[in-house]
Amino acid sequence: MVSLDIEALGARAEAMIGELSAISAEPTRLVRLFLSPEHRRASDLVARWMSEAKLEVFEDALGTVRGKLKGYDRGPTLLIGSHIDTVIDAGKYDGTLGVVAGIIAAEHIGRSCRRPPFNVEVVAFGDEEGSRFPSTLNASAACAGAFAPAALESCDRDGITIAAALKAYGKDADLIASAAYKPDDIAAYIEVHIEQGPVLEAENLSLGVVTAIVGQSRERVRVGGEAGHAGTVPMALRRDAMTGAAEIIGEIERIARKNFEAAMVATVGSMAVYPGAVNIIPSAVEFTVDLRSINDAVRRAAIAEMKAVACRIAQRRRLSIEFESLLDIQTVACEASLQERLSRSIEAIGCRSIRLPSGAIHDAQMMAQLCPSAMLFVRCRNGISHNPSEYADPRDMGRAIAALVQFILEFDLKAHQ
Amino acid sequence: MVSLDIEALGARAEAMIGELSAISAEPTRLVRLFLSPEHRRASDLVARWMSEAKLEVFEDALGTVRGKLKGYDRGPTLLIGSHIDTVIDAGKYDGTLGVVAGIIAAEHIGRSCRRPPFNVEVVAFGDEEGSRFPSTLNASAACAGAFAPAALESCDRDGITIAAALKAYGKDADLIASAAYKPDDIAAYIEVHIEQGPVLEAENLSLGVVTAIVGQSRERVRVGGEAGHAGTVPMALRRDAMTGAAEIIGEIERIARKNFEAAMVATVGSMAVYPGAVNIIPSAVEFTVDLRSINDAVRRAAIAEMKAVACRIAQRRRLSIEFESLLDIQTVACEASLQERLSRSIEAIGCRSIRLPSGAIHDAQMMAQLCPSAMLFVRCRNGISHNPSEYADPRDMGRAIAALVQFILEFDLKAHQ
Repeated sequence: MVSLDIEALGARAEAMIGELSAISAEPTRLVRLFLSPEHRRASDLVARWMSEAKLEVFEDALGTVRGKLKGYDRGPTLLIGSHIDTVIDAGKYDGTLGVVAGIIAAEHIGRSCRRPPFNVEVVAFGDEEGSRFPSTLNASAACAGAFAPAALESCDRDGITIAAALKAYGKDADLIASAAYKPDDIAAYIEVHIEQGPVLEAENLSLGVVTAIVGQSRERVRVGGEAGHAGTVPMALRRDAMTGAAEIIGEIERIARKNFEAAMVATVGSMAVYPGAVNIIPSAVEFTVDLRSINDAVRRAAIAEMKAVACRIAQRRRLSIEFESLLDIQTVACEASLQERLSRSIEAIGCRSIRLPSGAIHDAQMMAQLCPSAMLFVRCRNGISHNPSEYADPRDMGRAIAALVQFILEFDLKAHQ
Repeated sequence: MVSLDIEALGARAEAMIGELSAISAEPTRLVRLFLSPEHRRASDLVARWMSEAKLEVFEDALGTVRGKLKGYDRGPTLLIGSHIDTVIDAGKYDGTLGVVAGIIAAEHIGRSCRRPPFNVEVVAFGDEEGSRFPSTLNASAACAGAFAPAALESCDRDGITIAAALKAYGKDADLIASAAYKPDDIAAYIEVHIEQGPVLEAENLSLGVVTAIVGQSRERVRVGGEAGHAGTVPMALRRDAMTGAAEIIGEIERIARKNFEAAMVATVGSMAVYPGAVNIIPSAVEFTVDLRSINDAVRRAAIAEMKAVACRIAQRRRLSIEFESLLDIQTVACEASLQERLSRSIEAIGCRSIRLPSGAIHDAQMMAQLCPSAMLFVRCRNGISHNPSEYADPRDMGRAIAALVQFILEFDLKAHQ
């Protein structure tokens, strides 16, 4: 076990995160989009920090900033990273904590007398939030060798393609392929990230180890009935799309709850009611379902069950029903031995940890296509993220960095070659 | 029993309704608003028909056209009427059928050798739909002596008050009080109207007798929860305003169904979800409830039960809940002996009828403040109204007119003085 000053590590992370959060496209809220001038300034700051930490800095064809600490043996590389782009009106910890933690940990390793027999490379991706272009995770996709050239045509709200934005950013799209790491050169990818959910807080824990990044299904459901006068159509003669939709939503919740062992969550986040007047029986109700689970088979079975139950409800109520699949993303498991090592590192610094799935998407999802990947979650207040009130306690961040240092020092290269 | 040519009566009504339906503010849909140029033209046509039917025509201070057939005894007056204003994009039968039926019936009575010992007066109101001004039923209110002067300040979308519109229509607001009938002069008010619902069609009946115009409650319900990431907040830790609202809507439907003996109907016709994104747990859901019943005590108990159940659901789900009462209108019963006489008149022309409540508002509701009132409902196709596809079969309209003639001939003045 290493002896590290948790308070000092946390305070340093907090100061760096604060400095990064000052780089925004807007004065009153945090907005830092992929390939924007703010992305440029944030990358420059990250590169400066990396240089100060004695890392060799390189920026790839999609703007990912990489800082390498060479091992004594020129062996393969352990990647540590996250992202520096933000959503619109963001909190300051989402993504940046992982980059800052990587830099501080690498610097600590570099200065210690126990330099490991492998390289440590910190990566700061710039395209995780998907807040500028519909296509997302392109920065980590390029590193993982999974970049899809069609993404270059993805347009932002002003009609600017990623291709055009890259050119304006001073990059050459022809070099994207060469940004890919060679699988043989990479031992693993580790990402520190705020949880963005309330589980660690509810468990009164600073840190947790991610088991998997959950798969998701998104469906649009359209229930069709018959409009009618709210006063003149008896209940028994109605074909009310709203009461049908309400019953279906109750069933969706029931299905999600019964699959709690597969960490299932289901959300009906939007609804439109037609014609939408106080005194007219709704002729149609359209709503979205976002359903996620750590188990793809259980998730798909749940979607099938939802559809079957909804059809039965619609039939009984003489309603029509249609489903449109908007998304179907598979679960990406975090590598088991990396999870185990992260848990041991957390225990080594005197903390208890739990395993928990990530309900949100992360760069680790893409990096898992390249190499064994894992994530360390840090408690955030009230589980709030994508919001200016997002907050992580500096001591929790200090613990995360200490655990990361411990993890690097104990990392067994042989187990991952 | 009178012998009347049902087919001929129906065909005549259909032709007159067709002629009225050509008077519209728009070429492609039927729009005839209170105190508009189209109201003027429709009133002129109705007045011409009344004159041709040998009725004495008078137009009151709110534009109501009145045509009187004097009885041989100058006794009190039996009023028969409905309205000639329409909703926007209206059907052609709503309201106009009652006016046309009254004119045809009065003409028939006037020409028969059995002129009754009382006056028959046909009234064509112009402010039933409330499609121009928020304040409504003002025309029948003036006749009933229940006009509220504050209504003169009610504004249409262009900021024109009823006072200004009346002046432009050539009317003197100071004469509104004198438009009121004296209660001693009026024996009863009878209104023929399409059902605007599916009950008669479901019973395979042409005509029905209205028991009451049902009372209504309107509430706005606001369920408050906590927004959260659709992927990161486990079901057990959620405060999801949408699932709470869905459960409450299910209970509202259950309450309405169990009160079917009180002819209860409940409608959730509009809903807003905040923030309304596919991947965010809703922090708030706002919806409206329109609840009607023939029994005011049962209706108020149902509203109280709905609130109590909703509060329990909110408490269990850790949600906030607020209610805002938008409307509370009492039930207006149709006079029992008039109902009985209408039923007998229907049977006298060889039809079976049922008693049913009116879930919609009618001028009869206002006229009941002046005199015993009752309504005769006519089947309409698929229960559809307030829609260009509104349709009543001419034979059903012929039967309604024949029953109305029968009713007038058998009307027992002494029972209603």
